[in-house]
Amino acid sequence: MGEHLSPDEKFELITRNLQEVLGEEKLKQILQERELRVYWGTATTGKPHVAYFVPMSKIADFLKAGCEVTILFADLHAYLDNMKAPWELLELRTKYYEQVIKAMLESISVPLDKLKFVKGTDFQLSREYTLDVYRLSSVVTEHDAKKAGAEVVKQVDHPLLSGLLYPGLQALDEEYLKVDAQFGGVDQRKIFTLAEKYLPSLGYAKRLHMMNPMVPGLTGGKMSSSEEESKIDLLDSKEDVKKKLKKAFCEPGNIENNGVLSFVKHVLFPLHSEFIIKRDPKWGGDKVYTIYEEVEKDFAAEMIHPGDLKASVETDLNRLLDPIRKKFQSPELRKLTNTAYPSASKNKALPKGSKNPAEDEEVIPSRLDIRVGRVISVEKHPDADSLYLEKIDVGEAEPRTVVSGLVAYVSQEDLQDRLVVLLCNLKPQKMRGLESQAMLLCAS
Amino acid sequence: MGEHLSPDEKFELITRNLQEVLGEEKLKQILQERELRVYWGTATTGKPHVAYFVPMSKIADFLKAGCEVTILFADLHAYLDNMKAPWELLELRTKYYEQVIKAMLESISVPLDKLKFVKGTDFQLSREYTLDVYRLSSVVTEHDAKKAGAEVVKQVDHPLLSGLLYPGLQALDEEYLKVDAQFGGVDQRKIFTLAEKYLPSLGYAKRLHMMNPMVPGLTGGKMSSSEEESKIDLLDSKEDVKKKLKKAFCEPGNIENNGVLSFVKHVLFPLHSEFIIKRDPKWGGDKVYTIYEEVEKDFAAEMIHPGDLKASVETDLNRLLDPIRKKFQSPELRKLTNTAYPSASKNKALPKGSKNPAEDEEVIPSRLDIRVGRVISVEKHPDADSLYLEKIDVGEAEPRTVVSGLVAYVSQEDLQDRLVVLLCNLKPQKMRGLESQAMLLCAS
Repeated sequence: MGEHLSPDEKFELITRNLQEVLGEEKLKQILQERELRVYWGTATTGKPHVAYFVPMSKIADFLKAGCEVTILFADLHAYLDNMKAPWELLELRTKYYEQVIKAMLESISVPLDKLKFVKGTDFQLSREYTLDVYRLSSVVTEHDAKKAGAEVVKQVDHPLLSGLLYPGLQALDEEYLKVDAQFGGVDQRKIFTLAEKYLPSLGYAKRLHMMNPMVPGLTGGKMSSSEEESKIDLLDSKEDVKKKLKKAFCEPGNIENNGVLSFVKHVLFPLHSEFIIKRDPKWGGDKVYTIYEEVEKDFAAEMIHPGDLKASVETDLNRLLDPIRKKFQSPELRKLTNTAYPSASKNKALPKGSKNPAEDEEVIPSRLDIRVGRVISVEKHPDADSLYLEKIDVGEAEPRTVVSGLVAYVSQEDLQDRLVVLLCNLKPQKMRGLESQAMLLCAS
Repeated sequence: MGEHLSPDEKFELITRNLQEVLGEEKLKQILQERELRVYWGTATTGKPHVAYFVPMSKIADFLKAGCEVTILFADLHAYLDNMKAPWELLELRTKYYEQVIKAMLESISVPLDKLKFVKGTDFQLSREYTLDVYRLSSVVTEHDAKKAGAEVVKQVDHPLLSGLLYPGLQALDEEYLKVDAQFGGVDQRKIFTLAEKYLPSLGYAKRLHMMNPMVPGLTGGKMSSSEEESKIDLLDSKEDVKKKLKKAFCEPGNIENNGVLSFVKHVLFPLHSEFIIKRDPKWGGDKVYTIYEEVEKDFAAEMIHPGDLKASVETDLNRLLDPIRKKFQSPELRKLTNTAYPSASKNKALPKGSKNPAEDEEVIPSRLDIRVGRVISVEKHPDADSLYLEKIDVGEAEPRTVVSGLVAYVSQEDLQDRLVVLLCNLKPQKMRGLESQAMLLCAS
């Protein structure tokens, strides 16, 4: 691919929708001479969900522009992130990531012949690399290492030494993967500038850096495969997609932090260069947009209703998910999914004698993470009359957002500022009803 | 060795003269069952000098008590300490360390069959070790890593990341060298307690720690093979030993920070269990001490004169150095010495066409590290009427001590508080006269 594009067209495709590019001139220069080599890394921890379509759409741009793309599965980072997970499990997860990312790219019709997958442990534990980690540590100051990780490494009271090492590793990966550029979210910016500052002092070339904006998740929150089960999994059924999209925060006329609009902008538009709002004829019928900004403008003017936007995204999203769902119906990939993420497995037909790993998730009192919090805001859910949207301060950096069906039982005013009990570590399906009851109990 | 000793006798020998032992009970228990395995590490940087006899005397105790001793040559640390030195040079230095330490132990008649030498790079760059470094970094807090290095890592305004890594490496070495105990100076204490705290969290045994007190150098300053050429090299001639010992700080009656007395206590006494003060018959003749404390008591009471103490130490020291000098007269070891430490080489007979590396040391103006300092104290040298001992503040953490023959030219009062110019990076032999002239120039 990309053979028919001029260097300028390639540059346009490579950089569109990015928030920032460090080294644009160098990029233009490389494109005059040859194809760009770029890498994107992801730690193989939780299950990738639909927000991964955001970087994938960008990677699709790179591939369409003729780039050689390396996807790094940071299994070493994943291991260090949770040393309780054995290597065998991580190995399965890395395989799952590879399969699911391939399926995503196939779903958006990107050829994979210039795409390469590499595992961190394929080279990050080698003698040469390790020596370079030490060499780098001998020129990078504590201060710079700390600054580099400020937006990416979890900021806690007693930070771990590993948090200071990660940025350096990510810098060295550029050299060991033999790329010209690294791509990532703009939250990686300080790591990228660390790489630009220090690689040359080891005698290595300074690389380009391309940054996506931080895109809000389709169903709220930033892209991350955390526990939050409100996120849409790539293998979710159409019913689950509908249900989760329904709960997504998408206020009429509000285009800020609107995950649904962002998904249109960063995934659907780049793929098809158009987007159709499906609408009842009595509201004007379908409308075809060929410029994203028009969608945003109409939504801001409340000429597009959140319900219609969601329904249209739902249709397009299902079209993207269908081939992935289909691919993962094969016995092999079903098995991979169930072994890589046993607790998420819904497969009841376990072989005889085997212990269902999901049993570990049973609700027994000693497993409950019970916390007291204060309701700091209560709003009606924009899409459901029976639901409140509460923000609850449980002493963490950010308040937790809780959706609960309390409208029939307690007024907004009564709930405001109340101390409530939250069960913080249960999966939503296990929590059904529990949370609301717990809150009501304390709020009444 | 050690077969004829009871566990209690071994314990006594292993722990004598130590300042602190962490895990005494465990040590006693091991000695009931088998021989102790202990390691001591040293970075292969500067040339080992006579202060190395202090840990060597202790290692002699360990070997005599039947211990299996591993000496770790921390070549990776040495490399990181000065990345400008190529690996080839470090390799030669490691060989020099091995030869010279063997020679020291032979000189004090210790059998070497239970002594093992290991290089850091033999295992510290392996996959397993590296993974453990990362695992350790994922449980050790930044705070604890920083605290651990506080007394050993150079404390500077912009500390390097590597300083936070070293303590963890030193902890892991205990596991990878398969020892029961680590031996070191008490300045290592915080690293040792880090090792005790964190090794168990990786599933490894907590080790014992044995600490020597900080022993002042024979000719002043703490044990370290820095540039300071006042230190007595293991290959120094008898004339040099005499000259350097003459300058050693050894005030009549003062037993604090007295490097000469400390050498008697920690090296000469443990070796021979006696020490003879050689004295002119008119001052009472030779006196044989079999208890160190008696030497100290007599020196404090000024019954031993600094000159007699120095002369006696000189005799014993030369007896220790003789076999080392002799061994290093072999063409092989001469060559090793000259290649491992080219600038220290005094060998004029270089092969034709080869460049004398010492030429790099030529005094040309651009190589001079000229600094302005303030004289903060001036004292008469205790052993030489023509010399002052000045402490000069050049803006470093500690004032520099300068010995200069200015007594004939300027009074103590005139020198006090003066701004002077110092040439800070020349070897003493190159500085002869220069420094005094420079000081006089500015002080007048």
